[in-house]
Amino acid sequence: MDRNIYLNKISLEEAKHRIEQAILEGKITLKQRSEWLPVEESLGRVTSEAVYARRSSLHYTAAAMDGIVVHSEDTKNASENNPVILSREKDFLYVNTGQPLPDGFDALIKIEDVVPVGQNQNGQSINQKEDFEQLQIYQSVFPGANIRYIGEDIVTHQLILPVNHKIRPVDIGALMAGGISRIQAREKPRVAIIPTGEELVEPGEEEIKAGDILDFNSSMLSNSVIQWGGEPVIYPIIRDIKEELVKTLQKVAEENDIVTIIAGTSAGSKDFTAQSLGELGKILFHGIAIMPGKPTLAGIVQNVPVIGLPGYPVSYLIAAWEFVLPLVYKLLGLPLPKRKKVKALIGRKVVSKLGNEEFLRVKLARIDDQLIAYPLSRGAGVISSLAEADALVRIPSLSEGLALKESTEAELLEDNLNLDNTMIIIGSHDLILDVLRNELQAVSPEFRLASFHTGSMGGLLALKQGITHLATSHLLDVQSGEYNFPYIRRILPDLKLVVVNMAYRQQGLMVSKGNPKEIRGVKDLIRRNVHYINRQKGSGTRVLLDYLLGKCNINPDDIQGYHQEEFTHLMIASAVANKRADAGLGIYSAARAFHLDFIPLIKERYDLIIPEKYFHSARIKKVLEIIKTNHFKKQAAGLGGYDLSQCGKVLSNEKID
Amino acid sequence: MDRNIYLNKISLEEAKHRIEQAILEGKITLKQRSEWLPVEESLGRVTSEAVYARRSSLHYTAAAMDGIVVHSEDTKNASENNPVILSREKDFLYVNTGQPLPDGFDALIKIEDVVPVGQNQNGQSINQKEDFEQLQIYQSVFPGANIRYIGEDIVTHQLILPVNHKIRPVDIGALMAGGISRIQAREKPRVAIIPTGEELVEPGEEEIKAGDILDFNSSMLSNSVIQWGGEPVIYPIIRDIKEELVKTLQKVAEENDIVTIIAGTSAGSKDFTAQSLGELGKILFHGIAIMPGKPTLAGIVQNVPVIGLPGYPVSYLIAAWEFVLPLVYKLLGLPLPKRKKVKALIGRKVVSKLGNEEFLRVKLARIDDQLIAYPLSRGAGVISSLAEADALVRIPSLSEGLALKESTEAELLEDNLNLDNTMIIIGSHDLILDVLRNELQAVSPEFRLASFHTGSMGGLLALKQGITHLATSHLLDVQSGEYNFPYIRRILPDLKLVVVNMAYRQQGLMVSKGNPKEIRGVKDLIRRNVHYINRQKGSGTRVLLDYLLGKCNINPDDIQGYHQEEFTHLMIASAVANKRADAGLGIYSAARAFHLDFIPLIKERYDLIIPEKYFHSARIKKVLEIIKTNHFKKQAAGLGGYDLSQCGKVLSNEKID
Repeated sequence: MDRNIYLNKISLEEAKHRIEQAILEGKITLKQRSEWLPVEESLGRVTSEAVYARRSSLHYTAAAMDGIVVHSEDTKNASENNPVILSREKDFLYVNTGQPLPDGFDALIKIEDVVPVGQNQNGQSINQKEDFEQLQIYQSVFPGANIRYIGEDIVTHQLILPVNHKIRPVDIGALMAGGISRIQAREKPRVAIIPTGEELVEPGEEEIKAGDILDFNSSMLSNSVIQWGGEPVIYPIIRDIKEELVKTLQKVAEENDIVTIIAGTSAGSKDFTAQSLGELGKILFHGIAIMPGKPTLAGIVQNVPVIGLPGYPVSYLIAAWEFVLPLVYKLLGLPLPKRKKVKALIGRKVVSKLGNEEFLRVKLARIDDQLIAYPLSRGAGVISSLAEADALVRIPSLSEGLALKESTEAELLEDNLNLDNTMIIIGSHDLILDVLRNELQAVSPEFRLASFHTGSMGGLLALKQGITHLATSHLLDVQSGEYNFPYIRRILPDLKLVVVNMAYRQQGLMVSKGNPKEIRGVKDLIRRNVHYINRQKGSGTRVLLDYLLGKCNINPDDIQGYHQEEFTHLMIASAVANKRADAGLGIYSAARAFHLDFIPLIKERYDLIIPEKYFHSARIKKVLEIIKTNHFKKQAAGLGGYDLSQCGKVLSNEKID
Repeated sequence: MDRNIYLNKISLEEAKHRIEQAILEGKITLKQRSEWLPVEESLGRVTSEAVYARRSSLHYTAAAMDGIVVHSEDTKNASENNPVILSREKDFLYVNTGQPLPDGFDALIKIEDVVPVGQNQNGQSINQKEDFEQLQIYQSVFPGANIRYIGEDIVTHQLILPVNHKIRPVDIGALMAGGISRIQAREKPRVAIIPTGEELVEPGEEEIKAGDILDFNSSMLSNSVIQWGGEPVIYPIIRDIKEELVKTLQKVAEENDIVTIIAGTSAGSKDFTAQSLGELGKILFHGIAIMPGKPTLAGIVQNVPVIGLPGYPVSYLIAAWEFVLPLVYKLLGLPLPKRKKVKALIGRKVVSKLGNEEFLRVKLARIDDQLIAYPLSRGAGVISSLAEADALVRIPSLSEGLALKESTEAELLEDNLNLDNTMIIIGSHDLILDVLRNELQAVSPEFRLASFHTGSMGGLLALKQGITHLATSHLLDVQSGEYNFPYIRRILPDLKLVVVNMAYRQQGLMVSKGNPKEIRGVKDLIRRNVHYINRQKGSGTRVLLDYLLGKCNINPDDIQGYHQEEFTHLMIASAVANKRADAGLGIYSAARAFHLDFIPLIKERYDLIIPEKYFHSARIKKVLEIIKTNHFKKQAAGLGGYDLSQCGKVLSNEKID
């Protein structure tokens, strides 16, 4: 079997340079085309040539106020002590704002400043003046006073918009004011999206089998292209037949400005993209030293750039940002948008492989005036990590990673992120956190909540490290039978903290519907036919399990699967539901979501732990306000297994200090 | 005649508060409606409820690599020195990346790490391994190694998106990955736009009369509403008939979420908006202490907010930003976007009226690491000033204005402005500057050029004040017959400058086509039947005129219109073309643009003056590069009256120091 070897990876810069070079040398020709558009439909489009005014605005000389038009010459000697008397028709005419200046007059006096003959200066309501044939004025006016002249806004032949300008609503106003009703704008660059892969299925389909891969990459890219100002064209899925791909590529290159191919770019046995490209045209590179995004390739077919994007969704989108977006912008004549950079301290140690530039997805939040960048999942298949990300941190190819709280630079994925309004919760997982996050954004759309499920001990540690606003914990102290406080006293003796109850919740063993293995308690976990799935070290649930095992004198190593870990209750429930394990310890609400049977073992306390210094901040106050509402409690109770009678209650604060 | 008196103006804050209050009290009801949308068509829409995953992603357990799946238990004792032999079917199976994990296996070993039995570890190309029935392995693997489990990205029942979330391409991916094909999104808020005014004409019409007002406000607002995520509905123009307006308002309030009315809000005799609103519903306020935007009003008809927007386009748009946008965002459930604020020094003295909060439009550029805010035209009718503006500076109600270089805060009108790439030219006007601005943006879309026409002396002064990158000048020194250098030596003795010629150009008198007043030279300007239009003090053209008058011993005061000033050659040409004046001094290209007759008087030198410290900056180099191209010279020459033989040449630099 022949494999495409792409291990001669090049750097991102070199890859970009090769495309640039191909454009400069005319091997890639980006054809900017233009079309005529009505101005009112040109929002967001880009001018393809300069637009000069065809008409002045104002297009006539106008009265700027309600009043009388006069000959300025006649007013020369008027003063407080020497009023000048003017006669209608001969010396003045009444005009309203916006009326054309009558011929022969060159200035305007406001209606408020004229006095009917025979009245004193303040004796007359202005509302009745228009009836008078003779008026007195008390001040001189210069030629042009209160007159709006032709071209005060825009003068004919003046440049209104240069080429390569993206049209905003206000530009539409300026163009119309300048007498322009149609403009030449760049045609939207056509971007072909060719999904390939035997195993791909379209997202619409309800039933998907094991081994199927949902093609949501095409939709992500097509919507990105729309956002960038291009026109996406999604072609039918090509099912790994090289001849079909060659034929399609040929046709698609004729019909589009940019061609992208999904997947088929790695060294798998059925990856024909590079072969097809090599056959039809020229390959510029195959393989880049970035992670995710390594198996990206680029080539040329009929002078059209072809970008082969990796199939993993995070790799796919990051490679599209790096290689497709710049081509679209070039075709539009727009400068490449630069991501705003901010300094941040990394919120968790990150070990990175030498030899690849890594794009680390991070969530950003400000803790004590310091921006913290929280690394998200690094899997190339974890699209939710990119959806959650506020920014990317680039770890250079020659770096082995970042230490906790090392200063780094984060590139914002959106321009208008409000980094001050994100609240961080680190600690124990509970389904209630999703409800809280949603409720917060429902009530105060300006606030954001992000939770990281590192377990209860992880939460306390994060408080110690000063990298979270809140921690969640349900740590049982076996000696005292008390939750959380003994751990807090031990681990965080110097922090002033407030403990607020979120819920009492039911912990127990989740087992398959009908409990086929007849599991009744932790003692059954050591049976040969029972496979367990565990929570990670440091989680309150793991502590609980070890406590329960200890009480029964069970050696953890006698439990099959004790060392296989997951990070959330939902993941445990999912593992049981999908028969990866027969049992797992977790909360009732997770078991219920997956329609599992549940063997209740203990009712435990799940608390929010809040540094006192944040307790009165707007964000935290909002959270505490929300969890006390009936609306919140009703939603949480609906998940099942919660006692919310103490929810929102501050627990014996005095004990902690 | 009855006038609506809106002089009991309230502050912007109070005006906003009254609307907020009406919403809180339920007098205004903003009805958030939702609709089902296919996920792939949901870009930019806002979730109207939380979206939880309906399927896990991955939805099956998969091989993460090409290799063999094994029972991890079997590999426990494998090491470099103790290879373990595995048999096909019984102990292992070959799998490709993405294939479902066969039942009974729990780990994967990469194909690169297995060796066919009988070969040594490096003896075999990996391409042929798949044929072997027995393989040796040299290392143990843990359960789950190189396996991707169900839910590694998203697990069923997990929150994918909270409510009030604006959907991006990456969210579409995450939703699809989570098995979501349709979502509930907020309906686009319907914003009614009712233009009113007897004098309004629709922008499409080619012929417009004196007194007509082009209604481009409706298009600006409708496009703004689209940009904000709403759905605009433009209603037919209402021509000042109160009954018609009342009837329309009633109907429109039933059909829309927000109603806006253009104009008819000031105290003019035909302004019925407030009257109609008072009759149908309730007026919340009428008149705000802001400039522009004073005659804004708000009210309620059938619980629907009605915003009366002033007719002047700048007032109109600013009032829409302040009052319509927040309502649209509230209906969408999005937080109000906050404009980014930057510190800047004001580039020109600004005198502001006490009692009004002024929204000053400014252009921003960085000069010597210092952001400068250049005030643009302050006329409420000058929409081009808002199109040119990068930011707004708010001058508080109790401030009398800003001194030159006073520090102030500017609110950016766009999030992603690149303030480092704007180049400022201050000084003498020439039509060539429009060509240069356009050409720069054509060649380097990332650069921007902004020119302010304060005349040649103004340009030199701006260099002295350190508020410009470049000056343009054509100042004739009468004694020496030399251009610019003598002025530079006098005014800027301490600055190291480079003078680069832009063009030699033809100055002369512009007169109506056919020269009906038979003007032959400056001597004719004192004739009783000749009305002149002058350039502003400090402009090179004014200096030239005074020089020419001096040579002929003409007293300026003998020229009618000597004191009427305009700021550009185009404005002078426009004034002559529109019969506001019979003659004006200016350059040939302006006369030609307006098809005027031209009496040539002098050929003069028009130079760029550049501080030496900027001479080698990327921006300036690009400008100097452009003006030397034939493409630029051809366009400039096409305007008429230019000698470009020296264009781009550095002129006797040594003389200046």
